[in-house]
Amino acid sequence: MKELSITSPAKIVMLVIDGLGGLPDPKTGRTELETARIPHLDALAAGGICGLADPIAPGITPGSGPGHLALFGYDPVTCNIGRGALEAVGIDVELQAGDVAARGNFCTVDEKSIITDRRAGRISNDKCAELCKILDGMSFDGVKVMVYPVREHRFVIIFRGAGLSAEVSESDPSRTGVVPLDITDLNPESRKMAGIANKFAARAGELLAAHHPANMVLLRGFAKKPHFATMQEVYNLNPLAIAVYPMYRGLARLVGMDVARTGTTLEDEFKTLQENYSKYDFFFLHVKWTDTAGEDGDFARKVKVLEQIDAALPALTNLNPDVLVVTGDHSTPAFLRGHSWHPVPVIICAKYCRTDSVKSFSESACLAGGLGRILSVQIMALAMANAQKLTKFGA
Amino acid sequence: MKELSITSPAKIVMLVIDGLGGLPDPKTGRTELETARIPHLDALAAGGICGLADPIAPGITPGSGPGHLALFGYDPVTCNIGRGALEAVGIDVELQAGDVAARGNFCTVDEKSIITDRRAGRISNDKCAELCKILDGMSFDGVKVMVYPVREHRFVIIFRGAGLSAEVSESDPSRTGVVPLDITDLNPESRKMAGIANKFAARAGELLAAHHPANMVLLRGFAKKPHFATMQEVYNLNPLAIAVYPMYRGLARLVGMDVARTGTTLEDEFKTLQENYSKYDFFFLHVKWTDTAGEDGDFARKVKVLEQIDAALPALTNLNPDVLVVTGDHSTPAFLRGHSWHPVPVIICAKYCRTDSVKSFSESACLAGGLGRILSVQIMALAMANAQKLTKFGA
Repeated sequence: MKELSITSPAKIVMLVIDGLGGLPDPKTGRTELETARIPHLDALAAGGICGLADPIAPGITPGSGPGHLALFGYDPVTCNIGRGALEAVGIDVELQAGDVAARGNFCTVDEKSIITDRRAGRISNDKCAELCKILDGMSFDGVKVMVYPVREHRFVIIFRGAGLSAEVSESDPSRTGVVPLDITDLNPESRKMAGIANKFAARAGELLAAHHPANMVLLRGFAKKPHFATMQEVYNLNPLAIAVYPMYRGLARLVGMDVARTGTTLEDEFKTLQENYSKYDFFFLHVKWTDTAGEDGDFARKVKVLEQIDAALPALTNLNPDVLVVTGDHSTPAFLRGHSWHPVPVIICAKYCRTDSVKSFSESACLAGGLGRILSVQIMALAMANAQKLTKFGA
Repeated sequence: MKELSITSPAKIVMLVIDGLGGLPDPKTGRTELETARIPHLDALAAGGICGLADPIAPGITPGSGPGHLALFGYDPVTCNIGRGALEAVGIDVELQAGDVAARGNFCTVDEKSIITDRRAGRISNDKCAELCKILDGMSFDGVKVMVYPVREHRFVIIFRGAGLSAEVSESDPSRTGVVPLDITDLNPESRKMAGIANKFAARAGELLAAHHPANMVLLRGFAKKPHFATMQEVYNLNPLAIAVYPMYRGLARLVGMDVARTGTTLEDEFKTLQENYSKYDFFFLHVKWTDTAGEDGDFARKVKVLEQIDAALPALTNLNPDVLVVTGDHSTPAFLRGHSWHPVPVIICAKYCRTDSVKSFSESACLAGGLGRILSVQIMALAMANAQKLTKFGA
């Protein structure tokens, strides 16, 4: 890809509708997309080429990390991100080279140190922030420890110092009725990390003793920031990310995208796109609320969000991007209340896309599309080709 | 897969109709499946999600070994089984670790030891068994030699002892008019195996001298038992195989399945499924007779077998498995009288399968199915996903 990519003024917009795909309502036989009135998206489907994309592979349900990396054209299996690093990315905390991040839970232990609640009764966000302040800023053997609240009982911990390696076991036994596990090194290079993590956990237990139910911590998912080639390097693109939620801004940063300041609504995001349209040649525009509605099991709300996106769409299409990709990072059917393995509808609109006979944007219509059944990781090459930003392979 | 698989009470039934796919009768334009009256299979197709599966890759005709390993979710190219080992598996002979198995032919040689018939006039099964008894039970340098009849001129030979390696050449020159080849080692570790195989062949020639036309042996396909991770290890499943023919029981054993005692008919197999239904969470149910009819070039009989399977099907569907997969290990079109490269129809029935518009079970109908064109090796992940036995990949 690196060798084939060429710079041109052509602009690519990738609209990622999080959790886009769904499952039919048994009463109507229609999915969320098939229920929603989405005339603008239908028009795009009619004018473009459609298909269904598997985010990772048939049957595999992706998390947000691999789902997006695939859309950015990165092999989602080899480019996996450790949970700790993704959690840091998800709250806009920048990891430096050498840092090790882990996910932390506040938990409840009894007088014998036995875990009675792995989530400390899901304490409030405010309580979490207050307790993180108590734990933040410690130092062990020259390694600085930073603790950031996430939500309820969850926090991120970052260890910063020389000679740290992330190959250590977890202290979370994933069940109650036992004591937290010792963190052990999984190879000799990780001995220092394991030692410091155990010292931190012991000290945290002392400092939290009076803070029942959040009187202990559990740590897992130790990971360093992954090193990916940037989209500038791979595609010769100058990319901008527009996303309301920090997780997606963080993922975009990992592949070298600039991240735009934007507001909190769909309209804000489209406005940010307009304002920045002249300055970049690739735009990742992330819309979260379809996924949230799907995760909440709210079929009607997911339908409504799809209709809102459709209504706002002219703000984007009026810019006449050379290539417009509309897809999702995975399916989130309201009936499953979570991410799923089902393939995701995709449209590519471009002058030379070889339009197919699909006339509406839905799972069943896209099945008959000209893209066929593809892997999400293949979409970027198709977008680049349609933007005429790829030269010939071989003579 | 290992990291994503979780145990749950959900049950998966995989019904493998051997040689399922076919080719149209030029007179009617309809394949075996399109000719058969199969209302129950059509109903499954209508309620499930359909597609076409390539057992290995487009254009590649599989043997029974790779065809089934792909269905069990094992890469059929890297998980290949040596011919000798497969032959042993096919007659229910258990190979121990360290054993080397080879396929043997009785052949005819003249007074100058020149091969005149590589198949010894296809002697009877009884004669084969009688001659195997003569050769069975020898011992060379502490290596025990066991000889088992297969069919006509074919037998399996197993060498059991320390320090054997299967990397040796074959004694079968694959043509007449020449003498049997010396078996040579292909690496230094195989010197012992080559020496013993040659000693066995020489001694066999002496013992068989009076048994013209079966007065010599040819050996090929030296192989050890392959070591595959079990389905318990890969999928956290507790799997049971139900199959009338030993080859398929043996293949199932190679991936760790329990093998049920069953009878000799389709009804016996379905009854065995019912009896064992509460004890396992994955069932491989193998039906052979479609393939046999195809191999015999008997279009009408293949149609009839399909109708018999369809008629018996309620015994299976009444169990309401959480996931039901119906497919074949390869196509065996009656017009080709053998296995073929054509993709195989597949149905997956499950609560959240995202039903497509396919209303009947056939090659042409499945082409429009929601699974699209997949590889057989991907079916297990889809079955696991639909059983909700796979967790999310990545955070």
